[in-house]
Amino acid sequence: MVLTLAQLAEELGAELRGDGATEISGLGTLRGATAQQLTFLANPRYRAYLEQTAAAAVLCTADQAEDCPVAALVVADPYQAFARISHHFDTTPAPLREVHPRAVIAADAVIEDNVSIGPNAVIGAGVRLKAGAVVMANAVIGDGSEVGEQARIYPNVTIYHGVIIGPRTIIHAGSVIGSDGFGFAFNEGRWNKVAQVGGVRIGADVDIGANVTIDRGAIEDTVIGNGVILDDQVHLAHNVVVGDHTAMAGKVGVSGSTRIGSYCMIGGAVGIAGHLEIGDRVVVLGMTLVSRSLTEPGTYGSALPADRQDRWRRNTARFRHLDELYRRVRKLEQDAGRG
Amino acid sequence: MVLTLAQLAEELGAELRGDGATEISGLGTLRGATAQQLTFLANPRYRAYLEQTAAAAVLCTADQAEDCPVAALVVADPYQAFARISHHFDTTPAPLREVHPRAVIAADAVIEDNVSIGPNAVIGAGVRLKAGAVVMANAVIGDGSEVGEQARIYPNVTIYHGVIIGPRTIIHAGSVIGSDGFGFAFNEGRWNKVAQVGGVRIGADVDIGANVTIDRGAIEDTVIGNGVILDDQVHLAHNVVVGDHTAMAGKVGVSGSTRIGSYCMIGGAVGIAGHLEIGDRVVVLGMTLVSRSLTEPGTYGSALPADRQDRWRRNTARFRHLDELYRRVRKLEQDAGRG
Amino acid sequence: MVLTLAQLAEELGAELRGDGATEISGLGTLRGATAQQLTFLANPRYRAYLEQTAAAAVLCTADQAEDCPVAALVVADPYQAFARISHHFDTTPAPLREVHPRAVIAADAVIEDNVSIGPNAVIGAGVRLKAGAVVMANAVIGDGSEVGEQARIYPNVTIYHGVIIGPRTIIHAGSVIGSDGFGFAFNEGRWNKVAQVGGVRIGADVDIGANVTIDRGAIEDTVIGNGVILDDQVHLAHNVVVGDHTAMAGKVGVSGSTRIGSYCMIGGAVGIAGHLEIGDRVVVLGMTLVSRSLTEPGTYGSALPADRQDRWRRNTARFRHLDELYRRVRKLEQDAGRG
Repeated sequence: MVLTLAQLAEELGAELRGDGATEISGLGTLRGATAQQLTFLANPRYRAYLEQTAAAAVLCTADQAEDCPVAALVVADPYQAFARISHHFDTTPAPLREVHPRAVIAADAVIEDNVSIGPNAVIGAGVRLKAGAVVMANAVIGDGSEVGEQARIYPNVTIYHGVIIGPRTIIHAGSVIGSDGFGFAFNEGRWNKVAQVGGVRIGADVDIGANVTIDRGAIEDTVIGNGVILDDQVHLAHNVVVGDHTAMAGKVGVSGSTRIGSYCMIGGAVGIAGHLEIGDRVVVLGMTLVSRSLTEPGTYGSALPADRQDRWRRNTARFRHLDELYRRVRKLEQDAGRG
Repeated sequence: MVLTLAQLAEELGAELRGDGATEISGLGTLRGATAQQLTFLANPRYRAYLEQTAAAAVLCTADQAEDCPVAALVVADPYQAFARISHHFDTTPAPLREVHPRAVIAADAVIEDNVSIGPNAVIGAGVRLKAGAVVMANAVIGDGSEVGEQARIYPNVTIYHGVIIGPRTIIHAGSVIGSDGFGFAFNEGRWNKVAQVGGVRIGADVDIGANVTIDRGAIEDTVIGNGVILDDQVHLAHNVVVGDHTAMAGKVGVSGSTRIGSYCMIGGAVGIAGHLEIGDRVVVLGMTLVSRSLTEPGTYGSALPADRQDRWRRNTARFRHLDELYRRVRKLEQDAGRG
Repeated sequence: MVLTLAQLAEELGAELRGDGATEISGLGTLRGATAQQLTFLANPRYRAYLEQTAAAAVLCTADQAEDCPVAALVVADPYQAFARISHHFDTTPAPLREVHPRAVIAADAVIEDNVSIGPNAVIGAGVRLKAGAVVMANAVIGDGSEVGEQARIYPNVTIYHGVIIGPRTIIHAGSVIGSDGFGFAFNEGRWNKVAQVGGVRIGADVDIGANVTIDRGAIEDTVIGNGVILDDQVHLAHNVVVGDHTAMAGKVGVSGSTRIGSYCMIGGAVGIAGHLEIGDRVVVLGMTLVSRSLTEPGTYGSALPADRQDRWRRNTARFRHLDELYRRVRKLEQDAGRG
């Protein structure tokens, strides 16, 4: 793909400062871009690299463009503009829009127009693959499940039975959707499995990373809203509900029946206990333990940051006696007549 | 599946309060159940929903039945009764009890009666699939491994060589059993791999979630007892031993050679260091770091819970000086004549 | 495989104390080894088992050999010697050095000499499998990727397009290399995906565990150096750079664009935030949160260790007021005339 700066400026509604005939054939970073590549400046910490860039052009704000040594595409939100342009240079192979002869497809599955099915993909009974859906090599779609229009299921994904996936949703390799929730009743010395009769419903424009697990509901469905983005190795237990446009970074785990609002941002490796309510626009910092409901918008944290081993050891040893320390301070205050 | 309340009462030995001819065709929650569905009341926090339920009938205790506006099946343990009944309404497709023509099976593999093998499943040399075992699509069973009677291996699971899986054990999609333990000897600036010559032995009636990893032993086997339940994304390193009926929630990680007793309950995302002994009936709360052996039954925790960002920042900054604070309090006490 | 003690002594340059004709047919632990097995003593905590061992022979130091009741192979570094010997007794099935007829291989893929490709493996367009490479059953190699000489890709692994894997590198089952990085630009109430146009480059002699995820770069590549070892369920986000011979235990997560030096050792379930610099020879203890760059070699920790639930509850409740406690102590000091 080769585009001129004039074409890109027009697409973005950007002000072009430079030669519109300059051809762009790829993307680069401020530091690494070559004279055929477009780059952008969004993170202020990289501003110092602007003046040395060897890119063909830089997506930046009007203010930044003053210091830009090469052509500039002036926009209000450079990262947003870059996101839009980036797809022209995407290297992801286009789906072949064919059903590979080595796919295994149940006789009653419904395969709509322009569907791609890769080799060794297995499509169960009663499945519906809607128009333009892509199911890649070695993925498995369980009985009665549905893959929405233009949705893309990467290799080695397993979708169980009774899962509904919305249009344009992407599920990366190795993820598992609809496995049994962790439901057991303890009786007479053993765990008796509770059949998990709910399903999973995933909305439109959802992006699910690699090796994610989303369990089916115990009775009702596990539900993922529209526009949700989940990074690799996220785990959502049975009957979790995730509101629209919520983002979860890698390795987040959410326990059963917790409901998370819309526009939340959950940091990496956060753990959220079960049966909680997390409101809209809640931000949780990385590695936080959420053990109570968070109904107020705001930012929450709990993890201690790394420290030198010697100091960490001394402080954690003292932590075991923190309550006692409080009592000792209280006693000192009382003795000083301030009790 | 449709059952009458009279049939369900008889199966459970429950006292029926209501019309035995009422037909049940599904399961619901107290709030969501329709007039064709059975529900249950176990968690006291849902008691308030009992009076508004529109279910056909409710599994509950005699005491709760007083307030039940619809038919009641009176039992001592409603959740246990629900667990038992739930399987009548399970939506999981029944195995086809056939070997799919697209399975790839080594000439010397032993396939017993009523085994199901899905398309593209790969069964290695010398494997034994015992009576009624189910190996689903795209799963791989390594050379010489054994899958027990009625055990079920979901799609895209990888079982390495030399793994023994007990009867009725379930392994959900994407899990990997028997990959190499993380054993390396550091020498002359590089990590030299130690061959992992042990295997994995998994007992009867074990339930393993999706995308779990259980490594093979370095020399002797990694061993999972009977009736163990492991949620999604659990990781057990080489030579871990897990006692019977122990439960681990999602994302638990256990390092090498640690031995865990029976009837333990390990919360989500707990990390357990290597070479430890965890006794029977130990309960560990979510996200706890277990870095020493826990030989006494009891409940253990370590993680700090989420707090507002501003307070969390102030408190974690102070934590770096906690040992110093102790010394200052000690000095105050000494000055006050209480040293 | 059967070897005599004389053969082993010669291979290792070890001093043999005992009968060189003794035959070794396997490996055992100090406690469990039989009279046909070799064992070793490396961890001092197992020294007490030396005197009761029933092994055929023990790899140990000269000092330890004094107490050895059976034959000894005296070496400077018993674990290193064991690592070397262990491969003679490896039970991992040897690759068949054949292309299985049920593999699916693009017409323009380049398959060099002695390559093994398992059933249902899918090899994309333009892929190069170098001499002796092994791609096992149901693995998928994306378009244009390259698998190095003698590298081994276990079953159900997914390699995306544009991934370079070095010689002798091992990737265990279920791992995903080259899935999209978690890059989105938020605009007008939704997350807009940024095409991830970088790739992944993995060096030589790397060992990657099961169900690991390594995302492709946003613009430039994600890079894993030579000799790196990653345990199961590690997650490396886009544009992470890992230096040579760094080791990461199970469940480590590293956020985007963080650069980690050489010879680091990162403990289990450590979380490292994005855009950080971790220097060479940094050691991070299990479950630590790394939220700032660590440029000095040394050992770092942050997690609190498990405590009894009652004490844990009391202390964590006090932690919420730690800053206040500091202020109260300061006040006491001031009142005492030490402000």
